[in-house]
Amino acid sequence: MLENKNPERTSLEKLGEFGLIKHLTKNFATHHKSTIKGVGDDAAVLDFKDKKAVISTDLLIEGVHFDLSYMPLKHLGYKSVIVNLSDIYAMNAIATQITVSLAVSNRFPLEALEEFYEGVALACKIYNVDLVGGDTTSSTTGMLISVTAIGEAKEADIVYRTSAQPNDLLVVSGDLGGAYLGLQVLEREKEVFKVDPNNQPDLSLYSYLVERQLKPEARKDIVELLEKLNVHPTSMIDISDGLSSEILHLCEQSNVGCNLYEDKIPLDPTVISTCEEFKMDSTMVALSGGEDYELLFTIDQKEFPKIKGNPNLTVMGHMTDKNEGAHLISRNSSKIPITAQGWNSLT
Amino acid sequence: MLENKNPERTSLEKLGEFGLIKHLTKNFATHHKSTIKGVGDDAAVLDFKDKKAVISTDLLIEGVHFDLSYMPLKHLGYKSVIVNLSDIYAMNAIATQITVSLAVSNRFPLEALEEFYEGVALACKIYNVDLVGGDTTSSTTGMLISVTAIGEAKEADIVYRTSAQPNDLLVVSGDLGGAYLGLQVLEREKEVFKVDPNNQPDLSLYSYLVERQLKPEARKDIVELLEKLNVHPTSMIDISDGLSSEILHLCEQSNVGCNLYEDKIPLDPTVISTCEEFKMDSTMVALSGGEDYELLFTIDQKEFPKIKGNPNLTVMGHMTDKNEGAHLISRNSSKIPITAQGWNSLT
Repeated sequence: MLENKNPERTSLEKLGEFGLIKHLTKNFATHHKSTIKGVGDDAAVLDFKDKKAVISTDLLIEGVHFDLSYMPLKHLGYKSVIVNLSDIYAMNAIATQITVSLAVSNRFPLEALEEFYEGVALACKIYNVDLVGGDTTSSTTGMLISVTAIGEAKEADIVYRTSAQPNDLLVVSGDLGGAYLGLQVLEREKEVFKVDPNNQPDLSLYSYLVERQLKPEARKDIVELLEKLNVHPTSMIDISDGLSSEILHLCEQSNVGCNLYEDKIPLDPTVISTCEEFKMDSTMVALSGGEDYELLFTIDQKEFPKIKGNPNLTVMGHMTDKNEGAHLISRNSSKIPITAQGWNSLT
Repeated sequence: MLENKNPERTSLEKLGEFGLIKHLTKNFATHHKSTIKGVGDDAAVLDFKDKKAVISTDLLIEGVHFDLSYMPLKHLGYKSVIVNLSDIYAMNAIATQITVSLAVSNRFPLEALEEFYEGVALACKIYNVDLVGGDTTSSTTGMLISVTAIGEAKEADIVYRTSAQPNDLLVVSGDLGGAYLGLQVLEREKEVFKVDPNNQPDLSLYSYLVERQLKPEARKDIVELLEKLNVHPTSMIDISDGLSSEILHLCEQSNVGCNLYEDKIPLDPTVISTCEEFKMDSTMVALSGGEDYELLFTIDQKEFPKIKGNPNLTVMGHMTDKNEGAHLISRNSSKIPITAQGWNSLT
């Protein structure tokens, strides 16, 4: 569908493993002072001086996390980096390095991997991170990607999931539900394509949603904004599995409850109109959709004036005592317990 | 064959992703001062103070890197950690933390993953490393493992691949070829088992070789020994792909040549006798077998007295000017160019 059918195909066997790594990483320069040695030895060497190192890792599996029939490989490379950087920003840290490991079956020609690494390179450039290592190997079926992201922060700046307090405000960046709806649109077009391969889909109405799914961004800008506003969140997490699941993580790990106001959940107009078209409940989509890669955090009420009216941030509720539980306060003021419904509950 | 057929099987769906991670990592305490935050947040937080951080990552794929028909899951967990720690030791650094990510299909019950993590825990205990993160997800087929190992070292202690000099001595720890022959023994028994499933293999003759394959160790002791002997290698690499391939890496990256003496290559007596049985050339097995996880390094000739007679270390040759090339000096004194023949060339 959106796949780039490259007419030139170079078999991976021609290069061998060492030739492949060298070839794919040859245009990656390193920029951070903390990168002492990048790709090319048994390990990378990094220097964090008086800062703390922050490390996170994620696996992405073909057929589970992505579908190459509508995910262009360049976007996949980009997104693989983004989902990991998002975890670093969720610690209120700045990402500095990544390692990218890739296993692919023989059906992938060299040109496909080059496209993937173009996306990796673009993410490295935009987010200013150095590629410092990785592994390339064959797989028996399909493609799988493992990325480890490394960041740095002063100890006092790091924000954990464990320190939200009752009465803290619950804040989210951006808007929610778009990535999940983007996936629904792409899945629908894939079914249409199966029936009529000549059908050219018009996705212009859904471009925001499709972009949220295929080319998400991580909220480095929010970490920088919080520093500029001199706001120090009391807890923070990124929204990868859906709002409800992440709220429950904050509540459980901080030992607090939460009241989330349905009418405060930020939704893009396209999310609302597409939910109507798909006959889905937009609140459910925001709560359970996942893959939004927005930052969810809590702040002391005293900090509210600093963020008031900021178009990037929305106060959606407040934390409570643990024994009050975690609830959604619906538009008609009924109190509904929040349950952990991830991605799977809607598919 | 050696697989533990556990009669209790708990389906992974029962636990869900968060329950699974929590369950599998609940017995992992952290011990290093540098581990500020381990499993349980968006990222781990580490503090290397005035030391440098060293980071390496590897993928292991079922059907490519391991065969569960003779690899017990506990050993697989152990080996997955070891192969990564080996890269850290090859920098002359001490491993301090790991992250372990796992993708498995539904055919694996919870008890299988518990066995895998028992092996991870054992490696963490023996090598004194903290498990600080990871990811657990489903795969469409088989099992795949991604480990990132993190270590620390003073800047002056770190040894790269790039600084070997002509006339430096070429030294290796332990002995070579065992892991590859262990694999040959296991593959042969697997074929026998296919024909006669009631046949109980007697592997006692090959126990050293099978252990080198199924439960390899990483040479942390060599890093500690070098420090004790006050020997600072001029270059170092670990032997994962075979001696010839690693020698060529050192030569290329250090811009030198090498003379390797065939009669100096350390071989265990079992390697020699099993090579005779399998009608294989033991030098070829040592050069190309791989998976030995020994350390290959170069030292200035002046340091020779410090390592002379040490049973853990063998001088196998010396580095030369680049234009002399890399050669094996055979037992009959002929000079054979060393070519990069990895694992695949022998299978």
